[in-house]
Amino acid sequence: LAGCATGGNMGTDPLPSWNDGASKQAIVDFVRDVTKEGSPNYVAPSQRIATFDNDGTLWVEQPIYTQFALMIAQLKAAKPRPEWVNNPTYKALMADDMKTAMAGGEKALLGLLFQANSGMSVDDYDKAIRQWFATARHPTLKRPYTELVYQPQLELLKYLRANGFKTFIVSGGTMEAMRPWAEEVYGIPPEQVVGSSQTIKYDVATGKLMREPSLFFLDDGPGKPVGINLHIGQRPILAFGNSDGDMHMLKYTTDGPGRRLGLIVHHDDAQREFAYDRQSSMGKLDKALDQAPANKWIVVSMKKDWKQVFPSAK
Amino acid sequence: LAGCATGGNMGTDPLPSWNDGASKQAIVDFVRDVTKEGSPNYVAPSQRIATFDNDGTLWVEQPIYTQFALMIAQLKAAKPRPEWVNNPTYKALMADDMKTAMAGGEKALLGLLFQANSGMSVDDYDKAIRQWFATARHPTLKRPYTELVYQPQLELLKYLRANGFKTFIVSGGTMEAMRPWAEEVYGIPPEQVVGSSQTIKYDVATGKLMREPSLFFLDDGPGKPVGINLHIGQRPILAFGNSDGDMHMLKYTTDGPGRRLGLIVHHDDAQREFAYDRQSSMGKLDKALDQAPANKWIVVSMKKDWKQVFPSAK
Ligand SMILES: [Ca+2]
Ligand SMILES: [Ca+2]
Repeated sequence: LAGCATGGNMGTDPLPSWNDGASKQAIVDFVRDVTKEGSPNYVAPSQRIATFDNDGTLWVEQPIYTQFALMIAQLKAAKPRPEWVNNPTYKALMADDMKTAMAGGEKALLGLLFQANSGMSVDDYDKAIRQWFATARHPTLKRPYTELVYQPQLELLKYLRANGFKTFIVSGGTMEAMRPWAEEVYGIPPEQVVGSSQTIKYDVATGKLMREPSLFFLDDGPGKPVGINLHIGQRPILAFGNSDGDMHMLKYTTDGPGRRLGLIVHHDDAQREFAYDRQSSMGKLDKALDQAPANKWIVVSMKKDWKQVFPSAK
Repeated sequence: LAGCATGGNMGTDPLPSWNDGASKQAIVDFVRDVTKEGSPNYVAPSQRIATFDNDGTLWVEQPIYTQFALMIAQLKAAKPRPEWVNNPTYKALMADDMKTAMAGGEKALLGLLFQANSGMSVDDYDKAIRQWFATARHPTLKRPYTELVYQPQLELLKYLRANGFKTFIVSGGTMEAMRPWAEEVYGIPPEQVVGSSQTIKYDVATGKLMREPSLFFLDDGPGKPVGINLHIGQRPILAFGNSDGDMHMLKYTTDGPGRRLGLIVHHDDAQREFAYDRQSSMGKLDKALDQAPANKWIVVSMKKDWKQVFPSAK
């Protein structure tokens, strides 16, 4: 009935890296329905908000979150503080023992990072992050991290924007680690990158924005709907995640009135990427997987639904 | 030399409510310079960030900030709390004695408001705000508040966007009081409205975002560059304010490298709007006025520079 040429597997397929199947069909059907004037589920462009988790949803998060790789590099480069000597998280990080490092939770890790880069200006920190990304390589896949993004998701982001959607990142990671490259890589400008953040102060004497040693906002779990409200100010109509940290974002999104779409990347492809879910210390997918059927969230199989995982080498 | 038709006083004048003069010329020259490919001051579209204060810069703020009028209505409608009986700010507000109410500063006022609407869901509060704006009228100008916006600024926002700028509000007021109407009135979508905010929590049991009785972030004075970093993630190249609360935003903007433009609305038009500056309890303009010449900030005279103040009645 809705015979437009924006979906399907014709020559004009906007999602060529998605295999035909229920997941791809659900996406195309949703987009057609909410963008078709006259449809009972029509949504005005200003309300076509789509939010994407970053780690494990838009790019690789194994064997450790990229933010942690960056953090370890920063902590190794930092002058060790006396109070860190007996800090179990610090000691584990220095020994590349991620299991112990993760035992204290995300807050312990971020707390350490924030101490390490407090007293730096926002501009200097931005430079340090850009420098790290320019040379860092993934330990097993051996490519720059910004090339380890998922090709099917790049196509999906573009397809949504071509259909009048605004695309946002809503990540547990910090905004400053994503904003320097998100526009070039994902087509998502800095103001559409939502994430965790460190307390920042404006130093009136020097005119510089300075980093303080504390967490300002944790954009994870039940913090994701709060971050969405703070930065976007509207309930999304589409949300895409991959772990229990996205469960509340998915619920908040699909709880709203009218047609909604919630999606989860299931990492089941040890051959081309990694296979993990309920037992993983990074991107644990357990409760959200259980709750997917009742909430009609689409579980996307990396193995079956994605024809290609990463962009071809340049 | 740069003879394009986007400025000047020709038939195609994009700023018809601005009188010819130094202020208008400075704006047009700036926009031409930063958008002209090959200019040493050329700025890529993704970095053309313009930030506007709201109260007194985009719309009227006398005799009291609209947010305060809304707050008084909300507090009068709220069941009085026992702890308010002897609160001097509350008592002054109830007596419409704004001078005393302001004595405790913006934080005291916001604190009271946040107590009044804590326990409300974000959705219910949004409805209450929309209802108030639908019927409230300015006490002396007798028009809906959303019609008491400045026509020259509506033209400027449009002109900047037509030249590839992204336009943002950066206000000391709360985001939820602006986001419901900013897109229709200013063409600024919710995610480009930056402001102060109340602590919000996601109630996992009900799936609702709930208001907590505390301030989360004060986007005023030295908080404005922090809010810009948090929500926009880039230093603006143009900032427009009207009071000492904008001084740090102006400084942060014009401190950056390359060509920059800082502007201040000077309310000197008692006939068509209001005349106030150094002594005003709302929108006090004192230090920023003193610092304007050294920083090359343009002081825009409402009386001389604006041909028309408010949009014509519909
Ligand atoms: Ca994730
Ligand atoms: Ca103001």
